[in-house]
Amino acid sequence: MSPEHNHSYGANKSALLSRLKRIEGQIRGIQKMIEDDRYCVDILTQLAAVKSATHQVALNLLDSHTHHCVKEALTNGTDGEEKIDELMDVVRKFTKG
Amino acid sequence: MSPEHNHSYGANKSALLSRLKRIEGQIRGIQKMIEDDRYCVDILTQLAAVKSATHQVALNLLDSHTHHCVKEALTNGTDGEEKIDELMDVVRKFTKG
Amino acid sequence: MSPEHNHSYGANKSALLSRLKRIEGQIRGIQKMIEDDRYCVDILTQLAAVKSATHQVALNLLDSHTHHCVKEALTNGTDGEEKIDELMDVVRKFTKG
Amino acid sequence: MSPEHNHSYGANKSALLSRLKRIEGQIRGIQKMIEDDRYCVDILTQLAAVKSATHQVALNLLDSHTHHCVKEALTNGTDGEEKIDELMDVVRKFTKG
Repeated sequence: MSPEHNHSYGANKSALLSRLKRIEGQIRGIQKMIEDDRYCVDILTQLAAVKSATHQVALNLLDSHTHHCVKEALTNGTDGEEKIDELMDVVRKFTKG
Repeated sequence: MSPEHNHSYGANKSALLSRLKRIEGQIRGIQKMIEDDRYCVDILTQLAAVKSATHQVALNLLDSHTHHCVKEALTNGTDGEEKIDELMDVVRKFTKG
Repeated sequence: MSPEHNHSYGANKSALLSRLKRIEGQIRGIQKMIEDDRYCVDILTQLAAVKSATHQVALNLLDSHTHHCVKEALTNGTDGEEKIDELMDVVRKFTKG
Repeated sequence: MSPEHNHSYGANKSALLSRLKRIEGQIRGIQKMIEDDRYCVDILTQLAAVKSATHQVALNLLDSHTHHCVKEALTNGTDGEEKIDELMDVVRKFTKG
């Protein structure tokens, strides 16, 4: 796949970037909590929030990727099977049983 | 979707059924452990194994479904978008962040 | 740990067994759906339900184990550290990132 | 719990902070990939890595919290039950079935 391709997230680019910016801020916040010797459970709660937010960003991106890149490859009859294999690899990464 | 459809798991039907049979046996085994007052951690280990085996069966079925039903719908230009929405709903069920 | 020990789930034994009985029935139901060539996504939805029900049984058992066995070992000053290591192993099994 | 308490992660503070610094860098890297219109699947792979790294940090912190704060509360006979309830809430957050 060339480094740039007609990506599926074009329309949501700024929304995607602002959510990632927020996650970046959350992680800096957790570092501050540790420097301030904050209670472990409060830190763990923030780590769970970062994990969950990252997961949501991934699901949105997976949704737009499937509706665009996978669909396009299948309807054009180009590399459809390869795209499905790729899709399943991503699903396995995000669904460790 | 009619109750019977040209399902994607036809070729693996017996393999799928025997794996589910094994999971059924594992669940009965856990009930026996509880009746025998077995140690909680040993029971928890078996429950983790059932969860993981169930997850693997689902991933295999998801893989064949995507390579057949979703692909077919997209290449025939029938209900491709609906199939992708359905696929993403399943992925969300199996990837609770 | 001896095969029988003063387990923590004594009081909930029948509730635990009946939930596992139900999961066993769900798995038999999924086998029937496959024999009847049912639609993949309907089967995947049932597999997600089995996974989730198994997970809930495990969380309940983990809760009672921690409130009894782990607590007892720590308050009696017996094998507290070992019990905590065991507890973390179980948590790792159920939280594959 | 007072904002500062004799936290359990004292000894690993710098290791914890450097791992979080790395995760922060990974998140910035993902933002750069999106700005550069990189392929969705490459971005999804990085998001999975962030999730997994965050999960590991949490497991380490949970381990030291249980071996120190929970153990201390139980052996001193102070708020042991409350600490176990707190622990189980955290486990539930990190094990969404």
